[in-house]
Amino acid sequence: MNDFRTAGHAAVDLLADYLGKLPEGPVWQAMDPAARERLLTLPLPKDGRGLDELVADIGTEVLPYPMGNGHPRFFGWVNAAPAPAGVLATLAAAAMNPSSAGGDHADVHLERTVVRWIAELAGFPHPPGAGLLTSGASMATIVALGSARNRAARLLGVDVREEGVAALPPLVGYVSAETHSCVRKAAELLGLGGRNLRAVRTDAAGHLDPAALRAQVAADRAAGLHPFLAVASAGTVNTGAVDDIAAIADVCADEGLWLHVDGAYGAFGLLDPLSAHRYAGLDRADSLALDPHKWLGVPVDCGCVLVRDPAELRGSFSLVPSYLRDENAGGLGWFSEYGIEQTRPFRSLKVWATIAASGRDGIARDVAHCTAMARRLGELVDAATDLELLAPVETSITAFRYAAEGVSEELLNRVNQALPVAIQQRGRTFATGTVLDGREALRACLINPAVAEDDLAVLVEEARTVGADLLSNQA
Amino acid sequence: MNDFRTAGHAAVDLLADYLGKLPEGPVWQAMDPAARERLLTLPLPKDGRGLDELVADIGTEVLPYPMGNGHPRFFGWVNAAPAPAGVLATLAAAAMNPSSAGGDHADVHLERTVVRWIAELAGFPHPPGAGLLTSGASMATIVALGSARNRAARLLGVDVREEGVAALPPLVGYVSAETHSCVRKAAELLGLGGRNLRAVRTDAAGHLDPAALRAQVAADRAAGLHPFLAVASAGTVNTGAVDDIAAIADVCADEGLWLHVDGAYGAFGLLDPLSAHRYAGLDRADSLALDPHKWLGVPVDCGCVLVRDPAELRGSFSLVPSYLRDENAGGLGWFSEYGIEQTRPFRSLKVWATIAASGRDGIARDVAHCTAMARRLGELVDAATDLELLAPVETSITAFRYAAEGVSEELLNRVNQALPVAIQQRGRTFATGTVLDGREALRACLINPAVAEDDLAVLVEEARTVGADLLSNQA
Ligand SMILES: Cc1ncc(COP(=O)(O)O)c(C=O)c1O
Ligand SMILES: Cc1ncc(COP(=O)(O)O)c(C=O)c1O
Repeated sequence: MNDFRTAGHAAVDLLADYLGKLPEGPVWQAMDPAARERLLTLPLPKDGRGLDELVADIGTEVLPYPMGNGHPRFFGWVNAAPAPAGVLATLAAAAMNPSSAGGDHADVHLERTVVRWIAELAGFPHPPGAGLLTSGASMATIVALGSARNRAARLLGVDVREEGVAALPPLVGYVSAETHSCVRKAAELLGLGGRNLRAVRTDAAGHLDPAALRAQVAADRAAGLHPFLAVASAGTVNTGAVDDIAAIADVCADEGLWLHVDGAYGAFGLLDPLSAHRYAGLDRADSLALDPHKWLGVPVDCGCVLVRDPAELRGSFSLVPSYLRDENAGGLGWFSEYGIEQTRPFRSLKVWATIAASGRDGIARDVAHCTAMARRLGELVDAATDLELLAPVETSITAFRYAAEGVSEELLNRVNQALPVAIQQRGRTFATGTVLDGREALRACLINPAVAEDDLAVLVEEARTVGADLLSNQA
Repeated sequence: MNDFRTAGHAAVDLLADYLGKLPEGPVWQAMDPAARERLLTLPLPKDGRGLDELVADIGTEVLPYPMGNGHPRFFGWVNAAPAPAGVLATLAAAAMNPSSAGGDHADVHLERTVVRWIAELAGFPHPPGAGLLTSGASMATIVALGSARNRAARLLGVDVREEGVAALPPLVGYVSAETHSCVRKAAELLGLGGRNLRAVRTDAAGHLDPAALRAQVAADRAAGLHPFLAVASAGTVNTGAVDDIAAIADVCADEGLWLHVDGAYGAFGLLDPLSAHRYAGLDRADSLALDPHKWLGVPVDCGCVLVRDPAELRGSFSLVPSYLRDENAGGLGWFSEYGIEQTRPFRSLKVWATIAASGRDGIARDVAHCTAMARRLGELVDAATDLELLAPVETSITAFRYAAEGVSEELLNRVNQALPVAIQQRGRTFATGTVLDGREALRACLINPAVAEDDLAVLVEEARTVGADLLSNQA
């Protein structure tokens, strides 16, 4: 263990330096081609090497080429800066290396606790067994929709696990155009067919229209289809819009649909007192997907699925062969009976550390700071004559575009499509693009509590400067 | 970052002490009820705490209660001791915190390299893009079987992603009674229906019978079903048996079936020169699931799926919405197009570190040591008049039972069913149970290269002593 101790101390110093200097450097840079090539062509080594050498290698070959999301001016996709407490916890979790599947060891019990904490943070009911940590929201969504499929089948008298989807009438689910693609991926994986997810109309700000949902369900029933699921977004990935969950929950209650809420990006936004009202009805969902590795800053990977009724999870996923019988376990059984992973990593330790380092109040403060900064960015955009805000700022995503006056939509689209990468390549800040209502857009997702007003000013400046450059080159 | 540095050094010392002392203590102990209760009832904290306090908490509340798999006398399930290099790498990976989905940063390129390394270790072909790291073999199996489903549908002219499984004729897959339960879970998840997985006869040692497979395929075709998949095990979880992959591959080639090989536990066994011959034909599979978090000792979680044809993965899983367009990426696109996870952790760094620390030769030596120890355990069992070896030792799992002479099968079953937990609770060693051919069995899985002959002697002694105790209590 002396190697481990020495190399471990060297690693801590290396990483403390790295984290300390991060804000001073560029947000992201394309890799030096030679360095990229070295990584891509590393031959499988014949002989081993010392831990100290490996740590040094990390310092020279890996650390200089980050994704950028640790930097306070990174606003891309929905990628967080890692919480330092969570980072240290991963070390301890890896050194212990349990499988948080079942049994009587610290990790299993801690997972029950942090799942409860997450439910409490999100204001979601949490009877014992009603949730588990996953690799991310994609997996949480698969678990949730798998449970929805199972319930729908059971109500139809079909054992879908045994008989397969072909034994069911066409199950139909409802989403909107703003629903995250992981929902479609889940429906495809589950064999339901992407075309059986119907996109319900949204309003101009991207909220699923509950009245349109009700009408569509009625029409589909009349056509002999079998509605079973509706998905509401508690923060869309494009603009951070929060659907009218309460109204959607009413439709689901009336129509017997499973209500799944995708809170991967946005659920923790309800900790901001100014935003909390938008989340009314969230606690009425049948399932909720959240991502501690997003707004909470838990190091990747860590998602979470919560369900109203734990029996739905266990009924959908429990499969206990003889070599996994757990004679020691209590009534709840193994976590692997509630989801898909058999061997399960000790994710709960980094969740525990991340939440414990800030406390509920600290997290709420951070969340409120991010939403305030996103609104402030919206104001700065509004104040700039050559920028245009493309959606109301409901949570902590600000979507806008470069829009100098008198330029055709077609040209604006060309400029704005090129804008994100052009900004990224300059290294001062990092935002990513999307398409809103046919318009190319820049979106800034603010989930790093280290973001300050100065950082917003840089983004606005970059969007204006680079936008004008692109325009003059294209025109 | 000073907090991080100080607490980080404290964590390294804590963990170096922990790892150093591990072999001296009990393998596993039931948790002190008060400590368990403390973990289970931890209230969501209102305020935050310092990193140093959190590290101290890990030392007092978590580290004393491990699963046991770090200990050289842990032989349970298929759970490895973590490779120290992999443990340190998790720290760096978490501090960088990229999403290894796509783009141009070190993690993405390193994943391409370690997937190639894994393929080279397993002697599997590896065209660019033909694999990715997953959370485990359960997930690898879902990705593999999802691709198999997609190919079968395409050959039938059906877009299963869009239309769903109901648009297909009944797809039938072939497994054996010894196939790992994750295959059934995958088939259920994919909507194929568990009953469409047919269990093909095995021989006495648990190998899937290729002739029976061929006959069953013919019979199913005659009955109007649509065979599409066969699963061979490269190391079963119960006894480590390796199927006759070459013969199964012949059947698959003749019948147009997708051949999936489950090498989660056993694939790396082919690095042992004495075992390599058993794996003939592995390189002919359409997909291979492996688990670096098992025999390689990469800290949990880390699985891997390899496929012969990368287009099958991308065709099955690629779904690229506007906010994820990657203008920077080359021809291979994002890893998230090849599997299920959108946000993906930096698993490759711990794989790189673990393999680089030992090198190919070191890994091969470790694997050969484990298989030698498992065979030696088999000899010790054979030599004990009150123990009975229940399966040939083909890889590094030894399955046996307590079997004093003149005791009825029924009583032996009762004794052996109670045996694993009784052994575990004494803390000297840890083995788990299973059922083989109706007989309750103890199985020891040897994947920790630290295991030595003395450790085997302890297991044999415990099985004999505890077995005799249980017998005298039951009789
Ligand atoms: C709204 C929303 N849902 C789901 C996901 C998918 O989450 P994950 O990447 O953790 O799988 C994302 C990711 O950005 C998201 O923003
Ligand atoms: C043969 C075999 N296949 C698949 C699995 C499942 O792997 P994982 O637990 O990584 O999902 C296991 C786990 O023990 C196994 O032994």
